[in-house]
Amino acid sequence: MIDVARRANVALSTVSYAINGTRAISAPTRRRIQKAMEELGYEPNAIARGLVSKRTRIIALLFPTPERGMGVTEMEFVTGAAEAALERDHHLVLWPTELRNLRQLDRLTGQGLVDGAVVMEVRLDDERVDLLRQAGLPFSMIGRTSEPGSINYADIDFEQGARDAVAHLTALGHRSIGFLNHSPSAFTVGYGPTVRAADGFRRAAMDAGVEHFERLCGDNVAAGRAAFHELRAMALNLTALVVMNDHAIVGVMDALDEIGWRVPDDFSLVSIGSSTRVSEMMRPRLTTLEPQSSELGRLGVHMLIDELEFRGAEPPAPTQVLLPCRLVEGRSSGPVRQH
Amino acid sequence: MIDVARRANVALSTVSYAINGTRAISAPTRRRIQKAMEELGYEPNAIARGLVSKRTRIIALLFPTPERGMGVTEMEFVTGAAEAALERDHHLVLWPTELRNLRQLDRLTGQGLVDGAVVMEVRLDDERVDLLRQAGLPFSMIGRTSEPGSINYADIDFEQGARDAVAHLTALGHRSIGFLNHSPSAFTVGYGPTVRAADGFRRAAMDAGVEHFERLCGDNVAAGRAAFHELRAMALNLTALVVMNDHAIVGVMDALDEIGWRVPDDFSLVSIGSSTRVSEMMRPRLTTLEPQSSELGRLGVHMLIDELEFRGAEPPAPTQVLLPCRLVEGRSSGPVRQH
Repeated sequence: MIDVARRANVALSTVSYAINGTRAISAPTRRRIQKAMEELGYEPNAIARGLVSKRTRIIALLFPTPERGMGVTEMEFVTGAAEAALERDHHLVLWPTELRNLRQLDRLTGQGLVDGAVVMEVRLDDERVDLLRQAGLPFSMIGRTSEPGSINYADIDFEQGARDAVAHLTALGHRSIGFLNHSPSAFTVGYGPTVRAADGFRRAAMDAGVEHFERLCGDNVAAGRAAFHELRAMALNLTALVVMNDHAIVGVMDALDEIGWRVPDDFSLVSIGSSTRVSEMMRPRLTTLEPQSSELGRLGVHMLIDELEFRGAEPPAPTQVLLPCRLVEGRSSGPVRQH
Repeated sequence: MIDVARRANVALSTVSYAINGTRAISAPTRRRIQKAMEELGYEPNAIARGLVSKRTRIIALLFPTPERGMGVTEMEFVTGAAEAALERDHHLVLWPTELRNLRQLDRLTGQGLVDGAVVMEVRLDDERVDLLRQAGLPFSMIGRTSEPGSINYADIDFEQGARDAVAHLTALGHRSIGFLNHSPSAFTVGYGPTVRAADGFRRAAMDAGVEHFERLCGDNVAAGRAAFHELRAMALNLTALVVMNDHAIVGVMDALDEIGWRVPDDFSLVSIGSSTRVSEMMRPRLTTLEPQSSELGRLGVHMLIDELEFRGAEPPAPTQVLLPCRLVEGRSSGPVRQH
């Protein structure tokens, strides 16, 4: 440390603060110290540092397996979070604890290993959030509860995404639009995206004065196929569907084939939440409201570490961010069919 | 600890060994101690335990972003690994260090945080493996180098997978079969699955005495489309394609549409390495040789922890496992077209 201080031309105590994170160091000074450490091949022992600073520089990512299964979007959350942690000189541990397994989560937080947590797959009413609060462990959310209060969160604005999907379709002349959502159980447990996208769809359709229909649907091909046939039986003028369910959308395409309708000439499809990697696999390529998944994972980690490193007298103001979805036009949506 | 020992009816030293992992404890005794700890709400402090035992019970997962992008299969590796670590009372940290960033990997291993590492995206000749060996850090591989020696690994048997794909097609009467592989750069850097699947394909086709063609192909739709047209120009009798490239396969389907060929009536497709979740998204649903991705992630972690916990006098025998792919028949392969 003496060598580092000399080389960086700072006081020994400044090096100590920089390593232990016990006091705020200006960014240029921190960079100088890091450069000197790198040049000297100096590497603080993680465990010893954790004991001294009362900080381990380890944070946990809570990622229960969603009922709909792990997909590309979830992988992007995780990768973005891991990269951000590494950039901030922290380690990200994965805790794949199921939503209901509060006992396991309680056990893990009780070990004193992590300085904080990033919570994925947040429910509108989420017991894990209560548990972390009671344990006094700082955390941020990817997603948000119905009343997030002063908890830091980054979420995808699925409500606006659904509005954008409706706007895209009404601009193409569609006047009877359906919405195919995730499974009934996702709705029952209060999975935020499911509930908020449905709200956004309903309001946008009402504002635009178009006929609209909604349906929950299991996260699989067969359910999507059946759901489409049922929807069409009750919605005779239906010309377009907004779908928040990657697997059901394949079933919808099968059903359209069965009745001889082509996409987008006879019927339009817009996905909410599909990543470009997934929408490109569909034929025709899907029009999608793509979430910024990697950015969301990064943000969740950054806001947590910002909180952990905050040194002000007052508690920091909460950081709460809604990231918009980006409309990526594929070949699954087009002008309404003229009869 | 006295309370735990009393409740579990074992010696105090036995509790200590069980917590610190410093000596082998029989499974029934370990379970009795764990039960007593749970009943008493006793939770050892992770950091203090790490200092005492010289073990942190933290292991790292090295997962560079593959050039082809992160997909469902990679997510399954990670999830399986995280679950296995949790079951074995270890923590899994994610190190998303790029393949060539040896300096970062050196810095991370130098921190003394982890007891060992699981390496993903292994190249036939992998500098990270040399670095970990020199650093004396125990590790296992998901995948394998060309000469793994005594390093523990779990890999997918892509060579046999390619053979199974060819056998499936020849049984359906196909006598002229192509193989569409990953990108030329994956081949150049020596990405194991790319090289080994090509070997398996070539040998199986030669053994079966069928005409065969091979082509490397970028991991995107446009490359797949172009590759199919080029292949067909030189292979006039081609009736089937084995594809190890999720994104190219979509382009192949586009190309087949363009020439008016239907799958599987006019042309058969078999994927190697697609998970069921991906193959179900394709229309028609793909026949795939599905890797056991989650199991592979689990195995990588278990064999590493087995090594870390080994207490014998001699070094343990290496654990080296090749997991077969499972043939999942979809609707993309069928009997050869009769002219």
